[in-house]
Amino acid sequence: MSLGIVFLSEVMGTMMLTLLGCGVVANVALKGTKGNAGGFHLVNWGWGLAVMAGVFVAAKSGAQLNPAVTVGVWLSGGKEFAPGVPVDAASIFTSISGELVGAFLGAVFCWVAYKQHFDEEPDAATKLGVFSTGPAIRSYGWNVATEIIGTFVLVFVILLFGKSAAGLGPLPVALLVVGIGASLGGPTGYAINPARDLGPRIAHALLPIKGKGSSDWAYSWVPIVGPLVGGALGGLMANWMPLLVK
Amino acid sequence: MSLGIVFLSEVMGTMMLTLLGCGVVANVALKGTKGNAGGFHLVNWGWGLAVMAGVFVAAKSGAQLNPAVTVGVWLSGGKEFAPGVPVDAASIFTSISGELVGAFLGAVFCWVAYKQHFDEEPDAATKLGVFSTGPAIRSYGWNVATEIIGTFVLVFVILLFGKSAAGLGPLPVALLVVGIGASLGGPTGYAINPARDLGPRIAHALLPIKGKGSSDWAYSWVPIVGPLVGGALGGLMANWMPLLVK
Amino acid sequence: MSLGIVFLSEVMGTMMLTLLGCGVVANVALKGTKGNAGGFHLVNWGWGLAVMAGVFVAAKSGAQLNPAVTVGVWLSGGKEFAPGVPVDAASIFTSISGELVGAFLGAVFCWVAYKQHFDEEPDAATKLGVFSTGPAIRSYGWNVATEIIGTFVLVFVILLFGKSAAGLGPLPVALLVVGIGASLGGPTGYAINPARDLGPRIAHALLPIKGKGSSDWAYSWVPIVGPLVGGALGGLMANWMPLLVK
Amino acid sequence: MSLGIVFLSEVMGTMMLTLLGCGVVANVALKGTKGNAGGFHLVNWGWGLAVMAGVFVAAKSGAQLNPAVTVGVWLSGGKEFAPGVPVDAASIFTSISGELVGAFLGAVFCWVAYKQHFDEEPDAATKLGVFSTGPAIRSYGWNVATEIIGTFVLVFVILLFGKSAAGLGPLPVALLVVGIGASLGGPTGYAINPARDLGPRIAHALLPIKGKGSSDWAYSWVPIVGPLVGGALGGLMANWMPLLVK
Repeated sequence: MSLGIVFLSEVMGTMMLTLLGCGVVANVALKGTKGNAGGFHLVNWGWGLAVMAGVFVAAKSGAQLNPAVTVGVWLSGGKEFAPGVPVDAASIFTSISGELVGAFLGAVFCWVAYKQHFDEEPDAATKLGVFSTGPAIRSYGWNVATEIIGTFVLVFVILLFGKSAAGLGPLPVALLVVGIGASLGGPTGYAINPARDLGPRIAHALLPIKGKGSSDWAYSWVPIVGPLVGGALGGLMANWMPLLVK
Repeated sequence: MSLGIVFLSEVMGTMMLTLLGCGVVANVALKGTKGNAGGFHLVNWGWGLAVMAGVFVAAKSGAQLNPAVTVGVWLSGGKEFAPGVPVDAASIFTSISGELVGAFLGAVFCWVAYKQHFDEEPDAATKLGVFSTGPAIRSYGWNVATEIIGTFVLVFVILLFGKSAAGLGPLPVALLVVGIGASLGGPTGYAINPARDLGPRIAHALLPIKGKGSSDWAYSWVPIVGPLVGGALGGLMANWMPLLVK
Repeated sequence: MSLGIVFLSEVMGTMMLTLLGCGVVANVALKGTKGNAGGFHLVNWGWGLAVMAGVFVAAKSGAQLNPAVTVGVWLSGGKEFAPGVPVDAASIFTSISGELVGAFLGAVFCWVAYKQHFDEEPDAATKLGVFSTGPAIRSYGWNVATEIIGTFVLVFVILLFGKSAAGLGPLPVALLVVGIGASLGGPTGYAINPARDLGPRIAHALLPIKGKGSSDWAYSWVPIVGPLVGGALGGLMANWMPLLVK
Repeated sequence: MSLGIVFLSEVMGTMMLTLLGCGVVANVALKGTKGNAGGFHLVNWGWGLAVMAGVFVAAKSGAQLNPAVTVGVWLSGGKEFAPGVPVDAASIFTSISGELVGAFLGAVFCWVAYKQHFDEEPDAATKLGVFSTGPAIRSYGWNVATEIIGTFVLVFVILLFGKSAAGLGPLPVALLVVGIGASLGGPTGYAINPARDLGPRIAHALLPIKGKGSSDWAYSWVPIVGPLVGGALGGLMANWMPLLVK
């Protein structure tokens, strides 16, 4: 498979991910929507099923959708992201680029879908919250720790059992993300994916959103570093487990 | 398979869809029901599982249940809606007719099931909301855009992976609809299906519903045009993707 | 398979059904529980997953669990409830007896599990509501109609696609019941099963429940007649559909 | 498979179980989290999907994750926990040790993930509730009865149909736990697993949690004895059922 196709596949899948994922936050948080104040459980299902849709769309490139997963596959000693997509520097760089571009585009389309409710919403922080994660209590060290733990669970389970998100299957991956959100999303809003956070944050910075405030770049490294460390640990541990378990 | 059978299959499946789909809105919205004020998440699951039931029932005609899907299959270059059901002008016309008739009938049975609660409910707009969608903030351009995006996601994922709703399977299609509702249903109530909106709107206009108000025909073109455009784009893109991805 | 085994299988499966099904209502409704006021959606999932557990347990007798399903299989022209269990007068009588006994026993164990919360709960009608269904608005004609429609959906989908609840599979049946509850449970609390309602109502009448009131026998025929008519219609229609659809 | 590997597998799986399971309670209960007051249904899904993750991780040792399941497999006459893991005194002791260690570790990581919210939360009982179960109404006899019934359902369904949690499959086991929680979790918070309760209780006693109160050792035997009795009854009954049912 050519790298262009890997790129396109990851773009489309990650676009689906953030369109639906940012969408459910918009629905719950922005003023005047039909799902307003729909609760955290609704957000968990929205994000989980966003992952399901993304895995369907990007299955041919392994449905990585997440640089933490890409790095995890690499460090787990995986040979292929998907049949015909070898793990090497070029495919890693291509996949991560596609994830970032897709995550950006999905956030743009989410903004279009909820345009009027962004206009109506008075609170700037709520608007940013549709795009990117922020901590309930800001403390970079603990926030990073929470993101490491959440992403470790995601990558470890996927790799231990499925070798890839596409390999484990769209439905179990979706439910795993519902579960991580319900259980570990309380302190930081579970980015667990650097592209999911950075792509929409760039969209927030660039789009002409009415009454928008800061894009909170001071926090932006947390949902990049935490997930990458967590994904790396998950990949290393998934590589090491079968040695013991077999 | 004869066209009469395709018609009957789509009638029965789409009847199941709007009976259960309009039903959950009745349960959440009408006065005095046991699910009153049950929340948006309950509505999302009700509609998603309504699709599941409809896909089971109409599997033999491909479980289109939705003119946007019918059009999407056609534009994706699909040869058959289901084994023995070729895609041609006659089957397209037959399917869409069946979807509209079924959607009408399901809404009638929903009205029977909730008859006393329609009588008790004082608000005319709430009654219409059981049958058909309406925008949270009326603005035809943005409302159409939201419906295009939601229907694109539905049709693109179904066609890219399943060739048809029946091909992808009743459970993933149900979950996809739960997800689209949770994530993209906030501004317009996610018709994402012209028959689902128009059939019940006709039922609303014809049935002797106590204290009913306008059927809001001014808005009725939005959940027809938006989903048809979104479905067409989804079909075209699903046709184009495999060229790149294979 | 001997009739004694069919009886035992239906007893155990239907006991599971009402233990978990009445249990979720107890959790949501009775005073001082951890799930108090947990909402209608929680009730829908509780009942749906109660069916899942019951289908697992009673798979060997076809997991009928419900006289409306038993009757529906018979009228659909089914030859066997499950491999080795022919449909005849003796197996029908045995199955329905087992369903009724199991439904009674499950309600007794539910009362044991929630004993202290029954003691704490001051409202007699709430206590009865844990055991048996009651209408939101009493009107026997409309209440029967709602139960007919709900049970028709259940039996028709099961038979059209699965030949039996065990044949369709525990998970789709569970989700179908979640959906019927969400969508059609608003007016009468969706008995959709004569044994599920009558067995626990007998338990309510016999158990020494502190401060209990009437068992509302005046209503008790509605959740028997409605589901039996709906199941019969579903069975007949499932028998007739394949003639057209094949 | 060596006992060391069985131990490690159960440690990792049960760690996943309590990390995610205690996590969802932390999210719903502790001050200032994003899922605060998210409801009992969210807790049910969080625990159910925690089991799913644990079953994926520990599949190679049979995904027991629970001394009540370990005992149930033994008393059901099972020959192996998983391929290559015979049921004998050594594997039972090893598995239960692993479950306890894993449950302890998962609770420690949950505390790390929610550290700041433990610091903010003023109520000591709420903090303990993240780790271990407690009764809604304290009455040791009835509390034990409720735990027996809940664990019986868990172990009986798993063993009757799957021979083991891994054999039944991660998703049905997850849904079964969602259902047991929704339906039978109201009075005692459904420990249904001695390790899940004791491991985190030890963590609560040892960790330097700010403002923590008693670890309520007076109650601690209830979620040990109840589940063990319920699991034993489930195992014995699952052993006895096939004799009748086949």
